[in-house]
Amino acid sequence: MINKQTVNQPAITLVGAGPGDAELITLKAIKALKTADVVLYDALVNEALLEYAPENSIKIYVGKRSGDHTYSQDNINKLMVDYAVNYGHVVRLKGGDPFVFGRGFEELEYAASHNIPAKIIPGVSSSLAVPGLQHIPVTHRGLSESFWVVTGTTADGKISGDLYEAARSKATVIVLMGIHKLAEITEIFRYEGKGNLPVAVIQSGSTVNEKVAIGIVDTIVEIANEQNITSPALIVFGEVVSLHPLFQSAREFHDAITAK
Amino acid sequence: MINKQTVNQPAITLVGAGPGDAELITLKAIKALKTADVVLYDALVNEALLEYAPENSIKIYVGKRSGDHTYSQDNINKLMVDYAVNYGHVVRLKGGDPFVFGRGFEELEYAASHNIPAKIIPGVSSSLAVPGLQHIPVTHRGLSESFWVVTGTTADGKISGDLYEAARSKATVIVLMGIHKLAEITEIFRYEGKGNLPVAVIQSGSTVNEKVAIGIVDTIVEIANEQNITSPALIVFGEVVSLHPLFQSAREFHDAITAK
Repeated sequence: MINKQTVNQPAITLVGAGPGDAELITLKAIKALKTADVVLYDALVNEALLEYAPENSIKIYVGKRSGDHTYSQDNINKLMVDYAVNYGHVVRLKGGDPFVFGRGFEELEYAASHNIPAKIIPGVSSSLAVPGLQHIPVTHRGLSESFWVVTGTTADGKISGDLYEAARSKATVIVLMGIHKLAEITEIFRYEGKGNLPVAVIQSGSTVNEKVAIGIVDTIVEIANEQNITSPALIVFGEVVSLHPLFQSAREFHDAITAK
Repeated sequence: MINKQTVNQPAITLVGAGPGDAELITLKAIKALKTADVVLYDALVNEALLEYAPENSIKIYVGKRSGDHTYSQDNINKLMVDYAVNYGHVVRLKGGDPFVFGRGFEELEYAASHNIPAKIIPGVSSSLAVPGLQHIPVTHRGLSESFWVVTGTTADGKISGDLYEAARSKATVIVLMGIHKLAEITEIFRYEGKGNLPVAVIQSGSTVNEKVAIGIVDTIVEIANEQNITSPALIVFGEVVSLHPLFQSAREFHDAITAK
């Protein structure tokens, strides 16, 4: 009885599951999963990771669009706390890193407001890892001294105002959740006179479904369309994209077309 | 004999070792280490990770200031290729993520120029994980829609020009390798009228030596000095720092002092 009580102390761990590849999770995350009584996991989490959790643990998909159910952030917060109180250790498994547009801090605050101890285990963020796996470094001497990660879709569904500033900067700009607004976003860069800036669009990075489109601001919408790139995908703007093996041929093709 | 030859095919894997905590390494990184014939590792890598490499593998510290030796990037590139040719699989183990100010792409290019196959395994980047472990989210609804990671020390030893733009932006700004220039960097933010912007300085994040100083632009230099914060440390500028549990008391102390 004493043991059972100890095991079932309410606790919440926010865990970054990494970009998709099941091997890009950390040892610490696996340890947390192994002691989970409940796992609440998001849409972009690789389900193979659930196998690290005990067989008899409860696993609930809380992706924001999951068939019949739509889990709002409020629903998720409440579920998380309810399960912690009733079952013990809840692992909140989130794609990438919990604090990169993951609303992780809201979950942390909600746990705190119910006096449930909460920890965080950082993850490999798609924002860096996905370009990296395509051999696009977010920083590179002579090309980029910084990188700026921006959401393409804010709370009210708009493009972040920060993106207008980012388009003006010399940073490598990485846009998450922006693929549905690719045309609108490239327009912002074109307005800044950056029609020739190299761009990559990468879908489902680090997974078997990975696809990449490489071009420049002026051509990327067409190239991404031709390759049927869809969500989830991120966009990388910056001279570092010129280091990608496909870039030179994309540039030459464009120059040949425009020279006609 | 055939087996031996297979094992010794030259290959290079650039591996992100994470921010310092030995458990914040990925499964994929551990798999690479287990097949290493040689490990070349950097100053900020946790040496406990070397135990994943085979006992008879060669382990070489190539931190840029290592006692008698100073390994330049050229030295490291050459060592890496020499060892790959002579011993087989070289794991280049780098702090954080290999492409975040890690000069990883230069190593990839050098390997390619010698026709040695090279792969990259992304890591947990300190730039996100270290603030996160302090419960400072780099993004948070209502406070920050983006984050900008900048180097405090460029190739020529200067503060990156990007930092002047970053100080003007609404992004959460994370400065790596900038602790020695903390006064100069805060001056840039003060010049933008941001004396009250919350700031955190975090030393040796994720390790037993972790230390944190929390304040605002106007006070952080003094607070970081009082706490003897030294390298390695990163700096976080942004409203998200106000979410840190120590922030409110730092603000009240400052207000009490300045009201006198």
